[in-house]
Amino acid sequence: MLGKADSVNKALEATVLLRYPIKIHESMRYSILAGGKRVRPLLCIAACELVGGQESTAMPAACAVEMIHTMSLMHDDLPCMDNDDLRRGKPTNHMVFGEDVAVLAGDSLLAFAFELIATSTTGVPADRIVRVIGELAKSIGSEGLVAGQVIDICSEGMTDVGLEHLEFIHVHKTAALLEGSVVLGAILGGATDPEVEKLRKFARCIGLLFQVVDDILDVTKSSQELGKTAGKDLVADKTTYPKLIGLEKSREFAEKLNREAQDQLAAFDIEKAAPLIALANYIAYRNN
Amino acid sequence: MLGKADSVNKALEATVLLRYPIKIHESMRYSILAGGKRVRPLLCIAACELVGGQESTAMPAACAVEMIHTMSLMHDDLPCMDNDDLRRGKPTNHMVFGEDVAVLAGDSLLAFAFELIATSTTGVPADRIVRVIGELAKSIGSEGLVAGQVIDICSEGMTDVGLEHLEFIHVHKTAALLEGSVVLGAILGGATDPEVEKLRKFARCIGLLFQVVDDILDVTKSSQELGKTAGKDLVADKTTYPKLIGLEKSREFAEKLNREAQDQLAAFDIEKAAPLIALANYIAYRNN
Repeated sequence: MLGKADSVNKALEATVLLRYPIKIHESMRYSILAGGKRVRPLLCIAACELVGGQESTAMPAACAVEMIHTMSLMHDDLPCMDNDDLRRGKPTNHMVFGEDVAVLAGDSLLAFAFELIATSTTGVPADRIVRVIGELAKSIGSEGLVAGQVIDICSEGMTDVGLEHLEFIHVHKTAALLEGSVVLGAILGGATDPEVEKLRKFARCIGLLFQVVDDILDVTKSSQELGKTAGKDLVADKTTYPKLIGLEKSREFAEKLNREAQDQLAAFDIEKAAPLIALANYIAYRNN
Repeated sequence: MLGKADSVNKALEATVLLRYPIKIHESMRYSILAGGKRVRPLLCIAACELVGGQESTAMPAACAVEMIHTMSLMHDDLPCMDNDDLRRGKPTNHMVFGEDVAVLAGDSLLAFAFELIATSTTGVPADRIVRVIGELAKSIGSEGLVAGQVIDICSEGMTDVGLEHLEFIHVHKTAALLEGSVVLGAILGGATDPEVEKLRKFARCIGLLFQVVDDILDVTKSSQELGKTAGKDLVADKTTYPKLIGLEKSREFAEKLNREAQDQLAAFDIEKAAPLIALANYIAYRNN
């Protein structure tokens, strides 16, 4: 399944072209082509194929979710936010292109994501495309990843952050777009409403799983292994799962989420569900 | 026609609600409800009605273009960009809510604009909505207003900025979204392709007209009259029409653009075209 990341990389490379004005497109390409794990596009494609759709049908949406993910990282890394110098083992976008261009390149990727879905999705009825655009937008905005980031920022230095609060942050900051990725693929592939709901639950579990594993990696791995600054959460005094419930219980929680996620796939054809199972296991057992 | 701004204000007020997380929604509402001229929404509605559509059909798109306009102002005002303290007579968003929240609230408005069109546009076929979303996205991204802002930033302090270069900035930074506003309304109202093209030309003229008048006002009016910092372009050593061709020739150019714009409306019913003509004259003869 992870081999499909190559198709995604090729599609992104062919979509975000180096055009005039050069600087903004250089900045967009710098971050989008920096070689992330492409988990969101792969989830989108796998969900589409699970319900009988084609990879090509999901590809514009798959590229779009990666653009959204990338723009959120670019803006989160800004000096006025997390002030991060290192991302995916390279200097962050604003370190290379300046803060102004990093803000604008993020805005541009956000708009481009919607343009791509609206103008390049083929072979499905228009009402499905409209539904997909609504779902994607909701996963980003003030009820989606932006909400998570805002609460995260407001929580730094707070001493009484509970599990429920922490879960709100992660469900929004990380899980919303992962959920969106799966749901977009499912809708484009022609899933029935009950199928969409099962896949939504699957995505919510792995969304939270993703963040729990991120928190664990932040305290157990070096910066070099992660390709980003390790221990950052501790330094910033952020609440994390290991800090709140300990490393061992965090690992148990991750296992539980992975099982719950995979339970949602039981009703589907086991062979067709294999890529999503592989992705869930990849998220659970990854090292960076 | 300008009386319709009240309907737009009510729709915006009812759309961008004060929800949890409070801070981000406060920030979004602070800027979107700061009482701009609502030129873009009014253009969108007028274009829709011109070709026989309803105000209610265009209203989600009308709110969306105002959200995009507002987010672009919020990001442009940031310290890393134009570093402006005053906007519409009030402290800029980041002065009140902090830079981090201003960036995120802008992102959120951008996503929300697409959500609103996708989920709240009623009474038109889905393929029209998809087309509208593609047009709006294009007017924002690296071929739209972001492109204009990037070139604008890169041009500050340059001594050899010519008319062609200045026009590129304005066509993208200001005209693209004005054009988008008109085209969105036209498509939603059921315009034929030749009608869309006529209205696109109309919009391009008034887009450029809008910026020429802005440049003129910047050198002829006080900060109080403008509700934003006057003479800013001069201080920042920005190239403007008055600087490049003189105040008198700038005024003549504005007249010419207004005439050219209104010429495009000749083929339409004169009574139905009245609101667009009024908007063009308003843009040409406004005082702030």
